[in-house]
Amino acid sequence: MKELKDRIRKDGKIKAGNVLKVDSFLNHQMDIRLFEKIGQEFKRRFADAEINKILTIEASGIGIACVVAQSFDVPVVFAKKTQTKNIAGEVYTTKVESYTHGRIYDIIVSKEFLGKGDKVLLIDDFLANGKALEGLAQLVADSGAELVGAGIVIEKGFQVGGDMLREKGIRVESLAIVDSMDDKTGTITFRGDDADEQ
Amino acid sequence: MKELKDRIRKDGKIKAGNVLKVDSFLNHQMDIRLFEKIGQEFKRRFADAEINKILTIEASGIGIACVVAQSFDVPVVFAKKTQTKNIAGEVYTTKVESYTHGRIYDIIVSKEFLGKGDKVLLIDDFLANGKALEGLAQLVADSGAELVGAGIVIEKGFQVGGDMLREKGIRVESLAIVDSMDDKTGTITFRGDDADEQ
Repeated sequence: MKELKDRIRKDGKIKAGNVLKVDSFLNHQMDIRLFEKIGQEFKRRFADAEINKILTIEASGIGIACVVAQSFDVPVVFAKKTQTKNIAGEVYTTKVESYTHGRIYDIIVSKEFLGKGDKVLLIDDFLANGKALEGLAQLVADSGAELVGAGIVIEKGFQVGGDMLREKGIRVESLAIVDSMDDKTGTITFRGDDADEQ
Repeated sequence: MKELKDRIRKDGKIKAGNVLKVDSFLNHQMDIRLFEKIGQEFKRRFADAEINKILTIEASGIGIACVVAQSFDVPVVFAKKTQTKNIAGEVYTTKVESYTHGRIYDIIVSKEFLGKGDKVLLIDDFLANGKALEGLAQLVADSGAELVGAGIVIEKGFQVGGDMLREKGIRVESLAIVDSMDDKTGTITFRGDDADEQ
């Protein structure tokens, strides 16, 4: 998605340790008009698929998922990272290792909101080592719902997550795949532009 | 907002301890079409105000804020609940006591995304004891930005938050104010319908 790659080049900040900060428009401050275009692009890519629910994970996936959901006209469910007293007792749960926070946490989805008959698109802002997506896919499998695929805004193509999920047979559509980046020069190399790049 | 109150009566679940569960459409599974109407109603109520940024707090405020932001054509910033290594070092921060989780946590916003010249609307799903809103208002004050008001989906009118914030001079617009609820009978009493109820 050309507009997204241009925006990453313009406003993204590369930090040591292969950290790409896009918090001015994607995951701290959020450019809602860009999110609308991201939603239209996911809709274009999954035009052939039947989808009746979007599943994401708190926190930074939620805003993107909600705007993307408008293009699909479906509800969003977000997986929560810890059990709170306001959640129903009956939940699907699995463990996820966080790269950002360096710890393992539980993610949960109420059984009321995911189950047989659901055709689920996963949405998240980043795909790096794939642990969060793998956890969401596990919740979908546990619930008896069908996993249609995953829509990712930025994939770190040099980390293992994308390959790992695709090898499992999950359809992953990433709008920008970063193959390499250099914090010294500030350059980002994206995986070759698709023929249908917009 | 009549449609919202009707939906709360239809799908809300009253639990002992004055807990109102609306997680089938508001804060776990999210009805995006309802969020669009919520955004239009906030826009109608704040039509006289100049607003150039929406501030919310993770996690359940984010989805609502992002859809509401479409009606105002402004970016969203969400306050994060803990410091992660992906956040800039330069942040505004304050402490918030969580009613739901029974603990005190830090909320932070990067100084890059809030400051002088910003005219800020706070958006959140619930207002009960008002601690989260009070924390967000503090971040706005610390940043030198102007606080225009707060748009709340559901206010628990029998808890102290709404009165406390209004006494501080904050303009609070709540789309549904619950004055009482009874988990035995399942009845909810909303504060009297406004003349301009839609």
